[in-house]
Amino acid sequence: MKIMDSLSKDFPFTVEAADGAARAGVLQTPHGAVETPCFMPVGTRATVKTLSPRDLSEAGAGMILANAYHLYFRPGAGIVAAAGGLHRFMGWDGPILTDSGGFQVFSLGDTARVTGGGVGFRSLYDGSGHFFTPEAATKLQEELGADVIMCFDECVPAGAERAYLEESVRRTAEWAGRCQAAHSRDDQLLMGIIQGGVDLELRRQSVELTLELDFGGYAIGGLSVGEERPRTLEAMEFTASLLPAGKPRYFMGLGDPEGLVDAIAAGIDMFDCVLPTRAARNGRAYTSAGRLNLRNAVFARDRGPLDPGCDCYACRTFSRAYLRHLVTQKEILGLQLLSLHNVTFLLNLAQQARAAIKNGRFHSFRDREF
Amino acid sequence: MKIMDSLSKDFPFTVEAADGAARAGVLQTPHGAVETPCFMPVGTRATVKTLSPRDLSEAGAGMILANAYHLYFRPGAGIVAAAGGLHRFMGWDGPILTDSGGFQVFSLGDTARVTGGGVGFRSLYDGSGHFFTPEAATKLQEELGADVIMCFDECVPAGAERAYLEESVRRTAEWAGRCQAAHSRDDQLLMGIIQGGVDLELRRQSVELTLELDFGGYAIGGLSVGEERPRTLEAMEFTASLLPAGKPRYFMGLGDPEGLVDAIAAGIDMFDCVLPTRAARNGRAYTSAGRLNLRNAVFARDRGPLDPGCDCYACRTFSRAYLRHLVTQKEILGLQLLSLHNVTFLLNLAQQARAAIKNGRFHSFRDREF
Repeated sequence: MKIMDSLSKDFPFTVEAADGAARAGVLQTPHGAVETPCFMPVGTRATVKTLSPRDLSEAGAGMILANAYHLYFRPGAGIVAAAGGLHRFMGWDGPILTDSGGFQVFSLGDTARVTGGGVGFRSLYDGSGHFFTPEAATKLQEELGADVIMCFDECVPAGAERAYLEESVRRTAEWAGRCQAAHSRDDQLLMGIIQGGVDLELRRQSVELTLELDFGGYAIGGLSVGEERPRTLEAMEFTASLLPAGKPRYFMGLGDPEGLVDAIAAGIDMFDCVLPTRAARNGRAYTSAGRLNLRNAVFARDRGPLDPGCDCYACRTFSRAYLRHLVTQKEILGLQLLSLHNVTFLLNLAQQARAAIKNGRFHSFRDREF
Repeated sequence: MKIMDSLSKDFPFTVEAADGAARAGVLQTPHGAVETPCFMPVGTRATVKTLSPRDLSEAGAGMILANAYHLYFRPGAGIVAAAGGLHRFMGWDGPILTDSGGFQVFSLGDTARVTGGGVGFRSLYDGSGHFFTPEAATKLQEELGADVIMCFDECVPAGAERAYLEESVRRTAEWAGRCQAAHSRDDQLLMGIIQGGVDLELRRQSVELTLELDFGGYAIGGLSVGEERPRTLEAMEFTASLLPAGKPRYFMGLGDPEGLVDAIAAGIDMFDCVLPTRAARNGRAYTSAGRLNLRNAVFARDRGPLDPGCDCYACRTFSRAYLRHLVTQKEILGLQLLSLHNVTFLLNLAQQARAAIKNGRFHSFRDREF
């Protein structure tokens, strides 16, 4: 484990090339450098579903994500800490980012109540009552020990009233300040989160309030939560344009191939999404020729690879006919091979976009591929 | 793919060393040599549950098993054949053995009726009516294309009446002759199956009737089907002692560590069992210190490896605490890692027994370990 000494709250971040708003960068972390734009596979419960750490390395994963809310309940932060922290616990020696739990507290069930400087809610696991504060969420993430951690924010569902959105923007910024004050580990980068729904004026306010605190990186939260895609893109582009060029930008919860390229075009550096692994578990594959549903009978005798343009283990080794057989028979190996492929596909897509940006041909890449 | 030319019905089988009844041998197949005694992981539906071919190679698997009954229904032998046969279909370039389906036809559900030279039964998958004959089961296995194939036999449940057992011994031998006559691929070894339950006199009759047909290898079927373990061992030892020394002996359906060592002591060369992968899916691990149930809370903070004596990926990389977390959270990676470990454990056990036999210290190995 490479721990940097005397690291400031910022991790070194270099923008190596830009093409329009799109940029190619490198973020240094105590567990290695992350080339951006980068897709981060999601390992909610300290495992990217069906994939082992060596599968992830092989797929080319840089940073991966885990979730503080879920790990707080199962197995508990104390157990992760006793195991030597999240990296040791899950056997992943590369960079990790933890989400603070803000999204889960406000989106899982309907039990969250903001009160007394924090939020009370019921556990998804057993219905027991819990109370999170910005300070507690920060300490929790320090105990877990990821490289990049997130402020505890209030994530508002699509269609919320403006007054509530406005209040959540103010509260998220206030909480960000409290997270920052509580944060004591200088081997972790704490990122601020911009809220404001699809309201551009509120997005601007949220950016201004959050930039005042001067974080080492900024995330765009509260999008991809049910609103129409054009509104997502508009709010994403607008918000990204207001963020400082020298800090990494993370769009939370976007991972379909088209969306990923749109986000890169808007100048986003990092993305995460459960979609590639969830789609895989439903028998769906991303390919360079579009999406395939492996349950389709048309693949029963198809001896070709899942995606001729992919070099992952699944595509190198098996036919669509075999993958279809596994998927229709609910064999675990099928879920695993499709997950490996879908994650590889998105990681490759981000890498290809990066190469295009460095060669000044991102716009033709975007036009050609999408 | 290495296909041997002008191979007789026998595959070359060499007994390299013996220690008491136990023996160490090598069976040559068109897909490579198999060192015996060997445990064969079971890939019922052309996949050893949760494990990829490269996992199996890494675990040290020699021959693996697939099931003709299940593949007949899903995806269908025509689809496997169109994919280039079972090896290509499932991406496993090593030796494969297919069970004929006799066990499944007679044990799944209660619908089998012997009539007109074959057996009518209902599909496990959709209840549709089907009719298997020895000839059809042999052709089915030729279409699938495994290296070693099995005669279509009548497998009788434990506790059957003697008259029925006697009849099944006679019928199994008659069917074995018909399988032999129907078998036309000389790159496949067809094995005869000995029946007779736990009745030693009927076992002797079954051996005599089957040996008359002169197969390239002999399997002991109809045990481990619900009878008491001492009766299993008695019938196994007795039957093995009657089989020719120069042919491989396969005990069908035994794969717990103790049973495996007992079978090796009785002179058995090959075994298969779904237990190691099924136990893994229930959170259970075989270790050099006995069985562990990973659901047990005692492992919640256990930073040690699953089995300090094992060098599989799961034991090299993860703690018991992490594996317990995966198992209790029903994460697929947990099933996969435990399956990899359990299969590795049994493969290693067979290899250790083999080394002990070659060094003339199998009996002390057996006493020490069990």
